[in-house]
Amino acid sequence: METGLPVAVPSTALFTDQYELTMLQAALRAGTAERRSAFEVFTRRLPEGRRYGVVAGTGRVLDAVENFRFDDQLLDFLRETRVVDEPTLRWLADYRFTGDIVGYPEGEVYFPGSPILRVEGTFAECVLLETVILSILNHDSAVAAAASRMAVAAADRPLIEMGARRTHELGAVAAARAAYVGGFDTTSDLAAGFRYGIPTVGTSAHAFTLLHDTERDAFTAQVESLGQGTTLLVDTYDVAEAVRTAVEVAGPDLGAVRIDSGDLLLVAHRVRRQLDELGADRTRIVVTSDLDEYAIASLAAAPVDAYGVGTQLVTGSGHPTCSMVYKLVARADSETPGAPLRAVAKRSTGGKTSLGGAKWAARPLDAGGVAEAEVVGTGEVPPELAGHLLQVQLVDRGTVVGREPLDTARERHRAARARLPMSATQLSRGEPVLPVEHV
Amino acid sequence: METGLPVAVPSTALFTDQYELTMLQAALRAGTAERRSAFEVFTRRLPEGRRYGVVAGTGRVLDAVENFRFDDQLLDFLRETRVVDEPTLRWLADYRFTGDIVGYPEGEVYFPGSPILRVEGTFAECVLLETVILSILNHDSAVAAAASRMAVAAADRPLIEMGARRTHELGAVAAARAAYVGGFDTTSDLAAGFRYGIPTVGTSAHAFTLLHDTERDAFTAQVESLGQGTTLLVDTYDVAEAVRTAVEVAGPDLGAVRIDSGDLLLVAHRVRRQLDELGADRTRIVVTSDLDEYAIASLAAAPVDAYGVGTQLVTGSGHPTCSMVYKLVARADSETPGAPLRAVAKRSTGGKTSLGGAKWAARPLDAGGVAEAEVVGTGEVPPELAGHLLQVQLVDRGTVVGREPLDTARERHRAARARLPMSATQLSRGEPVLPVEHV
Repeated sequence: METGLPVAVPSTALFTDQYELTMLQAALRAGTAERRSAFEVFTRRLPEGRRYGVVAGTGRVLDAVENFRFDDQLLDFLRETRVVDEPTLRWLADYRFTGDIVGYPEGEVYFPGSPILRVEGTFAECVLLETVILSILNHDSAVAAAASRMAVAAADRPLIEMGARRTHELGAVAAARAAYVGGFDTTSDLAAGFRYGIPTVGTSAHAFTLLHDTERDAFTAQVESLGQGTTLLVDTYDVAEAVRTAVEVAGPDLGAVRIDSGDLLLVAHRVRRQLDELGADRTRIVVTSDLDEYAIASLAAAPVDAYGVGTQLVTGSGHPTCSMVYKLVARADSETPGAPLRAVAKRSTGGKTSLGGAKWAARPLDAGGVAEAEVVGTGEVPPELAGHLLQVQLVDRGTVVGREPLDTARERHRAARARLPMSATQLSRGEPVLPVEHV
Repeated sequence: METGLPVAVPSTALFTDQYELTMLQAALRAGTAERRSAFEVFTRRLPEGRRYGVVAGTGRVLDAVENFRFDDQLLDFLRETRVVDEPTLRWLADYRFTGDIVGYPEGEVYFPGSPILRVEGTFAECVLLETVILSILNHDSAVAAAASRMAVAAADRPLIEMGARRTHELGAVAAARAAYVGGFDTTSDLAAGFRYGIPTVGTSAHAFTLLHDTERDAFTAQVESLGQGTTLLVDTYDVAEAVRTAVEVAGPDLGAVRIDSGDLLLVAHRVRRQLDELGADRTRIVVTSDLDEYAIASLAAAPVDAYGVGTQLVTGSGHPTCSMVYKLVARADSETPGAPLRAVAKRSTGGKTSLGGAKWAARPLDAGGVAEAEVVGTGEVPPELAGHLLQVQLVDRGTVVGREPLDTARERHRAARARLPMSATQLSRGEPVLPVEHV
């Protein structure tokens, strides 16, 4: 698959919370802005009952970092609204991220405390990236986690992403991308096809049947234009009559019928029997009504050939965001280049504390190739874990080095999930499937 | 408030599900594409327990309709991927919406069955707008509904939107806009300030304190740069010590302190007492930790001066999308201009049925000025309801006529909510607060 046609990405520099700029201003004045710093992205917990998380959005993060530039229009806005002072505006005008980013590659699974991403550079250049990085990872990973569970439930049957109408129009494009990473096969969203090269599908809605004087007229119009391989929607009026008409109009080589309402289990069985009786035994059945991973699983024994999923996918199946945070974990004591970094961490009694220090992570496998634990540590990596490290270099001194085709992330996710203990793919609620060990 | 600096809006034409284009192709070939049609946006239900919905995103819908154009790059994509045939591509190249849109103005409340928007024109020009209209209204209205409940809970205390990091980066901008319509006062999201002129706020995070060698150094740096009116974050280490240091550094005219963790009720009382004892009795207290409308309500008696809300706002407080649909409700029997429209509706037994016919809606008031019912009908409007109609013209024969400043929508929402029966603003679960009567 291509990574998509070229498309202009606007500056991402204002996908930023104001406090990042005011912190920059105060640090510039205090002479602390250039202190070497390391920020880490991690979660303190998975959504309740979930057994693993899925890293998604990494490729979009790399685009966002590369396009994080303050042009004159943005600087004028910040000047007119007095968000920051003139020395800070001058600093922003030259902004380019020149630091390093390492992290879990896209599609990898994660657990509470996994150091998903580490951003290293001066405090000034790193602090500005907090919001845009979290926006992307929190949104995309939430969708990918839901997609992964649905892909497990669907087993080898294809999954169609069709949730664009249920979420923000550009969130939808990112959702289609994340769903593809998590295991979906196609999308209805043309912008996702345009931007990311994800295969797009779609034929007709109830409106098309209602537009015509009879259902037969509608089916005839569709088959004449789109061919007998098309998918006819059969639940506008009476399903049994529609199936009969569909096969009469398209012949037994009709591609598929779609059912979008009713008791899908019951209706799918009836429609399959009817299609077979009509000789249309290769005509597939697509179902598309408010599905989530549980509904998909409940149809495992039904004669269903593909699932279209909307709302529950793009809203993360009950968990529309992850709880990833971006925390300063280490920084130098001075602006002197080469000054060593020391671990820092919030430590009030009210909670939200974190573990200081830049962390590595490894996932050793047992003799059967099954992951045993998520080992997270600071300092030297024990030699026996060196072959199991999870983080890769994504940005090297300001240059993006971690870009890859979306299919690579998709394959990585499938492989990473397959290496988890079997209980990872149970849909029932449970604990994270790997223990996180801090060393 | 200005409606925001000018910013280029890209074409919205690919925020479209593929089936809209394949339906267009089939209808063009069948000679039904130009049949005059009316599509309506409505919901069959509110999220469980909610008493009213809030229309938001209307202004963005108008932008999207105006920018729905297929340029060469988009047409090349559709050609290369063979989504539609050449006659359809030629039709798309000239696409401009030339029809009418009427609907509930932005900020208005709605109920199950309220005809929120009606799009009238040829089938071809209307069917293409389904996905982008639903994306915008479903997303923005979900956020506005949560915002409205939070605004009720906060009473007269200011609400700060700070959820950008928890949702898609452009979804966040729309969410800040919808939150403003629903009753929020400011946002942390600079892009929302840039695009929509919403006032932005923000000072510092824990990272700023951790960057410095001591908390005193951090507070000193912040006050020197941002002035004593700034907000100091006091829960990085020990709250009581931080408050003491904050007042020592900034003096008793310190603007505010922010508490981001712990038992907010308890801590707010303690911090208030301490500030008062230190003579900082005008220093405000801002709280910002995982708030939703219930947590805000529980702090009503606490000495809190402002609430910052993130995750629960941008995810619709448990309901990240609305269930609005876009249905063909009437169409002509032929392409002849002036042919009358007849009501149409899906009527299979499996559910998802709807009521045919283009609808008006009225909300009569009782003698005390309180709304009595949502009356929805087709055909003639009864004379006694003529003064209470809800829909306004938004697009007139292709020209946008319904654009308005965002503050107008915000004020409209406040006024519309105030006219609902008192139980509308109870946070407890209940039925829609107005019965919908079909006549």
